[in-house]
Amino acid sequence: MATQVAPTPSSPADDASRFSSAYPNSSKVYQTTSGGLRVPFREIALSGGEPPLRVHDTSGPETWDVRAGLPAVRRTPRRLGASAARRPVTQLEFARQGQITDEMEFVALREGMPAEFVRSEVARGRAIIPANINHPELEPTIIGRNFLVKINANIGNSAIRSDIEEEVEKLRWAILWGADTVMDLSTGKRIHETREWIIRNSPVPIGTVPIYQALEKVGGVAEDLTWEAYRDTLVEQAEQGVDYFTVHAGVLLEYVPLTADRVTGIVSRGGSILAKWCLAHHRQNFLYTNFAEICEIMRAYDVSFSLGDGLRPGSIADANDAAQFAELKTQGELNRIAWEHGVQVMNEGPGHIPMHLIKENMEKQLEWCQEAPFYTLGPLTTDIAPGYDHITSAIGAAMIGWYGTAMLCYVTPKEHLGLPDKGDVKAGVIAYRIAAHAADLAKGHPRAREWDDALSRARFDFRWEDQFNLALDPVTARAFHDETLPADGAKVAHFCSMCGPKFCSMRISQDIRDEAARQRDEGMQAKAEEFRERGGEIYVNVE
Amino acid sequence: MATQVAPTPSSPADDASRFSSAYPNSSKVYQTTSGGLRVPFREIALSGGEPPLRVHDTSGPETWDVRAGLPAVRRTPRRLGASAARRPVTQLEFARQGQITDEMEFVALREGMPAEFVRSEVARGRAIIPANINHPELEPTIIGRNFLVKINANIGNSAIRSDIEEEVEKLRWAILWGADTVMDLSTGKRIHETREWIIRNSPVPIGTVPIYQALEKVGGVAEDLTWEAYRDTLVEQAEQGVDYFTVHAGVLLEYVPLTADRVTGIVSRGGSILAKWCLAHHRQNFLYTNFAEICEIMRAYDVSFSLGDGLRPGSIADANDAAQFAELKTQGELNRIAWEHGVQVMNEGPGHIPMHLIKENMEKQLEWCQEAPFYTLGPLTTDIAPGYDHITSAIGAAMIGWYGTAMLCYVTPKEHLGLPDKGDVKAGVIAYRIAAHAADLAKGHPRAREWDDALSRARFDFRWEDQFNLALDPVTARAFHDETLPADGAKVAHFCSMCGPKFCSMRISQDIRDEAARQRDEGMQAKAEEFRERGGEIYVNVE
Repeated sequence: MATQVAPTPSSPADDASRFSSAYPNSSKVYQTTSGGLRVPFREIALSGGEPPLRVHDTSGPETWDVRAGLPAVRRTPRRLGASAARRPVTQLEFARQGQITDEMEFVALREGMPAEFVRSEVARGRAIIPANINHPELEPTIIGRNFLVKINANIGNSAIRSDIEEEVEKLRWAILWGADTVMDLSTGKRIHETREWIIRNSPVPIGTVPIYQALEKVGGVAEDLTWEAYRDTLVEQAEQGVDYFTVHAGVLLEYVPLTADRVTGIVSRGGSILAKWCLAHHRQNFLYTNFAEICEIMRAYDVSFSLGDGLRPGSIADANDAAQFAELKTQGELNRIAWEHGVQVMNEGPGHIPMHLIKENMEKQLEWCQEAPFYTLGPLTTDIAPGYDHITSAIGAAMIGWYGTAMLCYVTPKEHLGLPDKGDVKAGVIAYRIAAHAADLAKGHPRAREWDDALSRARFDFRWEDQFNLALDPVTARAFHDETLPADGAKVAHFCSMCGPKFCSMRISQDIRDEAARQRDEGMQAKAEEFRERGGEIYVNVE
Repeated sequence: MATQVAPTPSSPADDASRFSSAYPNSSKVYQTTSGGLRVPFREIALSGGEPPLRVHDTSGPETWDVRAGLPAVRRTPRRLGASAARRPVTQLEFARQGQITDEMEFVALREGMPAEFVRSEVARGRAIIPANINHPELEPTIIGRNFLVKINANIGNSAIRSDIEEEVEKLRWAILWGADTVMDLSTGKRIHETREWIIRNSPVPIGTVPIYQALEKVGGVAEDLTWEAYRDTLVEQAEQGVDYFTVHAGVLLEYVPLTADRVTGIVSRGGSILAKWCLAHHRQNFLYTNFAEICEIMRAYDVSFSLGDGLRPGSIADANDAAQFAELKTQGELNRIAWEHGVQVMNEGPGHIPMHLIKENMEKQLEWCQEAPFYTLGPLTTDIAPGYDHITSAIGAAMIGWYGTAMLCYVTPKEHLGLPDKGDVKAGVIAYRIAAHAADLAKGHPRAREWDDALSRARFDFRWEDQFNLALDPVTARAFHDETLPADGAKVAHFCSMCGPKFCSMRISQDIRDEAARQRDEGMQAKAEEFRERGGEIYVNVE
């Protein structure tokens, strides 16, 4: 891997214990596709005669050398390049031809869905498998509303702080906790190098916003951006293996004045840069006018579009306004062009939206964008809680996920305030795993309920260890329990410190269940007498 | 105040700085009712020519001596007792007679609503003002779906841990961060004494579950509970000044077998105790059979009913099942009896409900319970995140609040795992302030948007100090910002560490706004040329 600096990886011992420390009693298991790809799952071992539970796993191999990067797992025509002959390259093109690719088979096993269904969803543009042919380290994932709701974590340094090593560590941390894709939003000096480290160490799709690097190339002056500088950046990043590009091609010149009376103007970085360019030159957005050529470049590597929402609202006050919906309609127009070129596409969405306006976003996107996957940032449902925007936005994310959004871009507690550190990345990922799973449940995804039911059974049976191990964050769950009842004996106790033994409804409830069954069998009146005479059993009389 | 122990209060200096430490640049201001009651608000001073913002305030006086308790603020016929003559006692009775009480006037000012509207909502049972005549320290609040959504915080020790001093401190901490009511769920040895300290120090309504203390009186054996022990407990607690009682009168004998096949049985402590009693004696729930007498006692003190949902689901698997809805229907029947006796009433609701089943809860409650206020616990929208149930439940709470729930009972990160400490109480209250406010916004409450808009304007104007001060938790917002940009200069910078100066969309957006206005005025083509020639302004060229 060509690079100037060698980040110091965490020690191999740290690496090896990363997964097992985060997930005690879990192990990695694999199913293998007919093409020989190994599909990872996390299997949680349980007690009490319960079968182990297999859950989605995004964390990559248990250990690897960051300096060498991940091993290649896909058979890809690496370095196919932009000069590829006119034959199927993208997952969309293969799907349309009726071919089930390795990647489709992989995600079919991963999701527990028929491969043919995966193919048909990709073919009709209702799902995408972002998988650059130059990203052989990838464990493919599918983004579409008939599959598990996915979450994205943003990382990336800014000119102000953060270095490469820290960003690679954030990537690994984000996927350990469940990020399905990661966007590298770096804007600092060493963008190319940072990205190289990230892609070579990423088992999940990597997204970028190429305009950031293009802007660096022209000295940071938005007005000096050119189509050529942007095009070269696309090729450079596609060559590296970026799986999806955010392209703000829907920020049209004529929409910019629609933002003038907003409370918070334009809050998308890319959107504001392009709006400035449009206004300075009084010309149409060069991403829009060159969209067909962008499609050609992206097709050659199977880079997927994430059509940016440069005019998304940045406050409750600006939600669902004319600027936002004008761009969304244009996104739909661009979807059709992308599809004509055989390029996979999803649409980015807001932002800040009060609950009663969320559904309208989803409905309009489905209609105007022909059911292409929707990929939203939150949305935040109120503006008054900086420091807690992982929560303000998890509310909106869960709802829009239920309504049909395919991927939720996380928001960390640092949103609006600063660059997230590792703790913030974890807080954001966990909040969004909650939102995505709540959405899967509400949508009735066939495998979603298994996990809740396994945990609820463990809870009712007082299998404390199982309850911890089934938690999204087992170590935290255990630590919270142990704060008040640290003794090992408490791990088998039929109560916790919330209620104590006498008031434990779960325990009483088990008595009731036993008793109700007995009474049903033997006639209630007679047994009621006996139950009374037997007196309380061991726990009720304690204290 | 009769008591055996004197909790050591925090020092007066601590007390005095409690409010100002939590809310820098805020001050307490008051509006006075015609009856002389002082209605508190928190006024946030802002810069940049912005008017100060007044927000709801639940924190009580800035300082007081915990050992002496709060001063009386209401003119109440204290110690009126159960032998009160047959004249209006409750807010409901006054409202029906067309009388606007001091309490109604108080909440009208607090909510910014006409007093006559408050009266009419109370008269028709669609809102309650829990205000025991023996709780003169109370600053009244109104719970009903046409008012601001309220939140409740549970405190209380268990047999396992926690002491009185710690509980009083949790009360003060919970109301500092915005709890509108507090439930004392103590089940330990010194229930009466703990409650006395809590009520005498509470400016917010206090709720309890009297069955807990009644059970202590009979040695903790559910089967030994008697109507007499329960009745005496009601009188004892009503005399002390408890503002609302959770009464599980809807847990009928015939509903208990409906829980036998549940994944998590009965999860309400009170519900399980009563179910056990019913089953052991094979008799109808004595709270149901004696409901009229309970009403008489509660009427005499104007204690409000919070009709318990003893059969609420404790897992996603058990949501909206026959047991839950059977009890809800009975709650509606009991509402009518309470109203006939002049007693205010609200209904408790679940629990654990996936998003797609939440609305049905609200709709059935409105129909079966004749629009009495609904008061729900969460609901949690998934079971897989112990340690983060303030988030799993804030999602459901925000949604059901939007649908019409009047009060949301908080859930802390320790739910299912242990007794919350102060940090957990704060985390729970903040998550629920977010949920309640998101619901107020979605319902279009006339005053809700002001706060969001004030914060968004501050954000767009880079008034960092105002942005911190307008946050639900100003100190945390500031600390997060300062982690990466601690220098004072950064507080006036037109960017933050997330994007750095060059990529700050808000800053670029302000340039665009200025430029768009100029171009509109002077003809776009000519100005575009000039703008290009002027070059980037100071921030864009930085670095």
